[in-house]
Amino acid sequence: MNVLVFNCGSSSLKYQLLHMGDEATLLAKGLVERIGLKEGVLTHKPEGKDKLELVQDIPNHSVGIDLVLKALVSPEHGVISDLKEINAAGHRVAHGGEFFKDSALIDEKAKENIAACCELAPLHNPANLEGILSMEKLLPGLPQVAVFDTSFHQTLPAEAFMYGLPYECYDKYRVRKYGFHGTSHKYVASKACDILGWNIEDKKIVSCHLGNGASVCAIDGGKSIETSMGFTPNEGLLMGTRTGNLDLGALLYIAEKKNLSIEETNKLINKQSGLAGISGISSDMRDLEIAAEGGNERAQLALDMFAYRVKRFVGSYSASMGGVDLVLFTGGIGENDSVSREKIIKDFGYLGLEFDAETNKGLRGKDAVISKEGSKVTAMVVTTNEELVIASDTQRILNGLK
Amino acid sequence: MNVLVFNCGSSSLKYQLLHMGDEATLLAKGLVERIGLKEGVLTHKPEGKDKLELVQDIPNHSVGIDLVLKALVSPEHGVISDLKEINAAGHRVAHGGEFFKDSALIDEKAKENIAACCELAPLHNPANLEGILSMEKLLPGLPQVAVFDTSFHQTLPAEAFMYGLPYECYDKYRVRKYGFHGTSHKYVASKACDILGWNIEDKKIVSCHLGNGASVCAIDGGKSIETSMGFTPNEGLLMGTRTGNLDLGALLYIAEKKNLSIEETNKLINKQSGLAGISGISSDMRDLEIAAEGGNERAQLALDMFAYRVKRFVGSYSASMGGVDLVLFTGGIGENDSVSREKIIKDFGYLGLEFDAETNKGLRGKDAVISKEGSKVTAMVVTTNEELVIASDTQRILNGLK
Repeated sequence: MNVLVFNCGSSSLKYQLLHMGDEATLLAKGLVERIGLKEGVLTHKPEGKDKLELVQDIPNHSVGIDLVLKALVSPEHGVISDLKEINAAGHRVAHGGEFFKDSALIDEKAKENIAACCELAPLHNPANLEGILSMEKLLPGLPQVAVFDTSFHQTLPAEAFMYGLPYECYDKYRVRKYGFHGTSHKYVASKACDILGWNIEDKKIVSCHLGNGASVCAIDGGKSIETSMGFTPNEGLLMGTRTGNLDLGALLYIAEKKNLSIEETNKLINKQSGLAGISGISSDMRDLEIAAEGGNERAQLALDMFAYRVKRFVGSYSASMGGVDLVLFTGGIGENDSVSREKIIKDFGYLGLEFDAETNKGLRGKDAVISKEGSKVTAMVVTTNEELVIASDTQRILNGLK
Repeated sequence: MNVLVFNCGSSSLKYQLLHMGDEATLLAKGLVERIGLKEGVLTHKPEGKDKLELVQDIPNHSVGIDLVLKALVSPEHGVISDLKEINAAGHRVAHGGEFFKDSALIDEKAKENIAACCELAPLHNPANLEGILSMEKLLPGLPQVAVFDTSFHQTLPAEAFMYGLPYECYDKYRVRKYGFHGTSHKYVASKACDILGWNIEDKKIVSCHLGNGASVCAIDGGKSIETSMGFTPNEGLLMGTRTGNLDLGALLYIAEKKNLSIEETNKLINKQSGLAGISGISSDMRDLEIAAEGGNERAQLALDMFAYRVKRFVGSYSASMGGVDLVLFTGGIGENDSVSREKIIKDFGYLGLEFDAETNKGLRGKDAVISKEGSKVTAMVVTTNEELVIASDTQRILNGLK
């Protein structure tokens, strides 16, 4: 089965065509940028063939996806000879609200429910839906599956997903913790257990997805029971430009002092804060590490805050589960930044985690255990692959229908 | 030394006169209510004498304190024969900002700095200062000491007290985590170590002050290194009417939906949320426990959320310190609610905490160990006494001057 995976944003879309055999094989991947702006760009990277770069106006997602399909079957840059070789499309959808506890086949009801979640994820769901509708128009009859950032976390118990607000905020406005990065947390937890030869149903896992967006997830017996992102991706960890947790009163104090509108306040906490806001330099860990080595105290502070918060969440989520067997690192920072990993987990000896500083050091972008042999709690780096989860889930949902 | 302790609010003040000998002895305590309103009330309770209740207009703190002083020396209800027997006054002051790392003798500079913190604690510091100025006028020359809710937490490292906001929010607007309940956390940690025969400097303690306001504190070697209240008391745990932590984006979403001003939003998160907002019944644990037993699901949810959050903080703060030797419960709920205590710590076996359910059950308002003998981590109930801390600190500061 060949699955075409889409991750559609408001002005860009990423795609991968994967052949799902005994092992998944990437056939092509690419990116459409500047949708709706002048001079859109398609960058198409077929496996074993030359890259294609195409610049032309791309007024909407439909035109962009049409270019992608044409590239996939083009004699020079294509990887299939006919669009019929595409057996399904899998779409990353940001928000499934309480409608979707799992990935879902796209039908009328599903589209309706995804639309009903647009208000909860106004920056993402409309674009995700746009991608689905475009594909429907371009390849009518092709089975499509939506894979949600939120659905893995629908197993959270009420005591974890409810906020301390008046109950009507949940009842009437659907305000609760939804969580994000679900596909990634699910994938790395399962992959780690495969590597270790463990049955995930017996295990307690804290998964740290650390990238420009970052979240921690407590996975007990294979189910998400707690996660650090909330109603929006702002909650929890310190991120590239997001504040993560802070005192609500402090936020209102600043909004009042600076006379900010709600929109401006949202911009402050999501675009101007986090590592970038504290350091005043960059949201990128590598820039901050270089600056900190050069003596920049605010860069060092940002790095320390980042690691300290992850550490607190690892402790907190161990408590949520009444113990922990495995701590996982994934995402751009989690997979590549050995310094942050060391700061985060070196002091968990009291939990029985014996950190292997030697193995950790210099480990980048590879699956590896970074706790010592015989350590009661295992720590591991596991590379994530969200497109692969989307393709696998698409296959699983379609197979389930047969 | 006799110390007159004040806790002044905007329209009320509480006081205690304590004799600080080898042991502290309470001589009298009382309450002035409805300051600035019609028909103020003084309730004066001398030890070994009849209670006095006095109703008259009390236009300001000065008049209220004058009534207190007269009651203290009155032949019928008094406990001293002359005001000269009062050797010092100790005032609870809510906010010391970054000025006060310890309790402080009141002089011109101290008054200036307390005034400079009024903006940070607009509901409390002005009244606290009012009490200090009134005493100065009524008993000129009496040494006075300010004991701050915040100063114990001034030892937090920057990675703990800084928020993920742009740096100027700290630099220009003084927005950071200050923490509160400092006198209580300090007192119970020290008292517990005395009871256990421990040297606090070698110990890692998580102190849970659980009352209508509630906070957790990580005390490493006797120093506060992390606490759950922040710039305001809203942060952290679920409280009687306060939200505690939640997604900032969720707050802004609700504020927008309900078209709330900043003042209304503050009211929502501080007065209408928490246990009361979730249950829709009450902010009082006892009411909720009765309702939950009767099958009220929202009451049960509020109780579960309360305990679950404390549990997460115990785990989190153990991580902050790289381990934990002692978990303490104090405050109205912490001292009296065995059901909540059990929910909070029964699953910390993985940390080496063996919970003693039998001892815990029914234990109310008494100092007692509630972990099993030989448990690697100790759990304990310790009754707090903020007035005693204020009196002791007053004595310590004055003795330090000699």
